[in-house]
Amino acid sequence: MPYRSLSLLLLLFCHLLVGAQPTKANYFRVVPLGVTGGLDESNLSAYLVAPAGSDLYYSLDAGTLYFGIRAAIRNGVFKGSPSQVLRTQIEGYLITHAHLDHVAGLIMNSPADGHKTIYAMAPAIHTLITHYFTWESWANFGDKGQKPALNKYHYQIMDQDSLYPLPPTGMTVQAFPLSHGNIQSTAFLIKSRGRYLLYLGDTGEDSLEKSTDLHTLWEKVTPLLKNNLLKGIFIEASFPDDQPDHLLFGHLTPKFLMKELEDLAALAGAKNLRGLNLIVIHRKPPEDHMATIKKELERENRLKVHLIFPIQGHPFKL
Amino acid sequence: MPYRSLSLLLLLFCHLLVGAQPTKANYFRVVPLGVTGGLDESNLSAYLVAPAGSDLYYSLDAGTLYFGIRAAIRNGVFKGSPSQVLRTQIEGYLITHAHLDHVAGLIMNSPADGHKTIYAMAPAIHTLITHYFTWESWANFGDKGQKPALNKYHYQIMDQDSLYPLPPTGMTVQAFPLSHGNIQSTAFLIKSRGRYLLYLGDTGEDSLEKSTDLHTLWEKVTPLLKNNLLKGIFIEASFPDDQPDHLLFGHLTPKFLMKELEDLAALAGAKNLRGLNLIVIHRKPPEDHMATIKKELERENRLKVHLIFPIQGHPFKL
Repeated sequence: MPYRSLSLLLLLFCHLLVGAQPTKANYFRVVPLGVTGGLDESNLSAYLVAPAGSDLYYSLDAGTLYFGIRAAIRNGVFKGSPSQVLRTQIEGYLITHAHLDHVAGLIMNSPADGHKTIYAMAPAIHTLITHYFTWESWANFGDKGQKPALNKYHYQIMDQDSLYPLPPTGMTVQAFPLSHGNIQSTAFLIKSRGRYLLYLGDTGEDSLEKSTDLHTLWEKVTPLLKNNLLKGIFIEASFPDDQPDHLLFGHLTPKFLMKELEDLAALAGAKNLRGLNLIVIHRKPPEDHMATIKKELERENRLKVHLIFPIQGHPFKL
Repeated sequence: MPYRSLSLLLLLFCHLLVGAQPTKANYFRVVPLGVTGGLDESNLSAYLVAPAGSDLYYSLDAGTLYFGIRAAIRNGVFKGSPSQVLRTQIEGYLITHAHLDHVAGLIMNSPADGHKTIYAMAPAIHTLITHYFTWESWANFGDKGQKPALNKYHYQIMDQDSLYPLPPTGMTVQAFPLSHGNIQSTAFLIKSRGRYLLYLGDTGEDSLEKSTDLHTLWEKVTPLLKNNLLKGIFIEASFPDDQPDHLLFGHLTPKFLMKELEDLAALAGAKNLRGLNLIVIHRKPPEDHMATIKKELERENRLKVHLIFPIQGHPFKL
C-alpha cells in the first residue's frame, strides 16, 4: 500500500531528523535574563526557571533583571512593565555566590520588588548582608544585618544536605558547594515532577582549584544520569582555551569543561551523556572571545552532548 | 536698499531665534553613558566630561559604562570596542557616592580597565574599599583595603577646600558635600579654561534633609553665575511631585528642585539663571514617571532655565 509505505518512511525520516535532540517530555521552562560572564551591565547571569506549563519562576542568579525582563517582554514572553513582571512572576532567588555580576540586578531592582526569599549557602548570604544590603552601599532590604532592616527579603541559608521547597512552584532545590578561586560558589539541583535540572555557578576545574567539589557533584548526579532523570546541566565556560591557567580566576575554559565532563562520563557512562542538554553560560566578552569559546566547545564535543548557547530574553524548554 | 534691509531683518530674526539659548562658546563636551535613577541596569548615572575639542574624558559617576559606551559607539561618538574605549578614553573617575547605581559599571568593568585614579570624598572611598573592591564581592582592584591589593585604581580622597587637577585634561575639580538621606553625597565643580560645570550627585532638599549643604553650595557658585562663568548645572529629579515627603529617600522632585533654584536665584539674581543650562539627571523609572517629571519641570520653570534631558550615548556641549 503506497500510502502506508509513505507514512512509515515519513515517520522514519522524522525520527532520524530529531534523533540528535532530546525527544522526551519537557519538565522545565527557562527564560534567560542575562547570559554573559561580565562587563556588559545589560546582560549578566540570570535564568528564570519554572516547571513546564507554569509561569511561576525562580531566578537562578540575578546579575541583570530589568533589562532582561524588558528583552523578554519584547519577545512576547511576558506582559506588563518590567517591574510588574519582576514583582509578580519571580517567586524568589537562588544565588550561587555574591560576586557583583551575579547579584547586581537583584540589588538594583529591590526598591520595586515584593517580599521574597533569597536562597543561598552561608558565604553568599553573609556577603549580601555585610556588603550590599547595608546602608552604605544600598538600603537594607533584608531581614538581617544593619538596622533598620526593611524585611523585604528573607534570607534562607542552605545546608548541603537539605532539600528546600520552592513555593508555590512545587519545585525543590538542593545546594552543593563549588570552588571559585578564593570564594565558595554553589551548584543548585532543582527537581520538578521527578525530573532534575543542575545549575552550576562560577567554578574552576578540580585539579587547578585543588578541590574535589566537582567530582563530588558528579558522583551525586550519576544516578540521575543513569536513570535518564537529568534534563540539563548549566555550566560555565568563561574564557577561550588559550587563557593561561594562572589567569583563570576560578573559571573554566572549553577544554577544562570537557575534562570535567569526561570525569562525569567515567562515572555515569559516556552513553548517558550523549544528547544531554548542556547549557553553556557565563562566556565573557569581548564578542570574538565568546565566539571562540563556542567554536572550541563544538570542536571538543567528543561526548556529543547537546550544546545550548542561551540568548537573553529567548525562552527554551528542558 | 532692499538687500541690506533683508539682511538686517534676517540677522534680527536669527538673534531672536537663538535668544533663549546660550550663545557663548562651548567649554565642555559631555557624553551621557547612563541617565536613569535606578532599576534599569543598562542605563544608570554616568557622564563623560572632557574639555571642548578634546577626547580626554573623566567619568562623573559610573553606574553604567559598557552598555553606555556601546550606545555611544553606535552613534559614531567613539571608535573601537567598548573595552578599548573604556581603557583609552576615560582618564579617571569622579564618584559622588557609593550607592550601587553610581558605581556598578566601574566595578563590573574593572577587569578590562587600565590604571586610573578614583576621586571621591572620604565616605565614598571608604565604601568602595570595604564593600565592593574586596575579595568577597569582587576582586580588590584598588590600592588600599583587603590584601592582596591589585593596585589598578588609586584612591584620591578629596577634601572640601582643595582643588584637584584632572591630568592630562587640564581640567580641575573641587568637591562639596551634599546630604542624601543617611549618607553623604558630593557635588563636583569642574573648571576648564576659566569656565565651570557643576555636577550634583543624589541630594535631598535642604529643609527636608535638615541640612544647609545645598545653600552653602549655592553661595559658592553665586559669583560664577554673576560673572557668567557657569556653563551648566547637573541636578537630580528622581520622583514626580506626588511622591510623599517621607518616601523621598534623600532625593528631589521637580517642586523641590525648583525651590532650591529659587534659593540660588535669591543669591545670584533671577536674571543670571535665565537660560542657564540645567541638565536634569537621575529620573527614576517607570517611563511614565520619567515623563511626568519632565512635564512638571517644564511647567514649573518660572526662572526660565534651559532644561536639558540627557539621552544615553548622545553627546552635547556646554
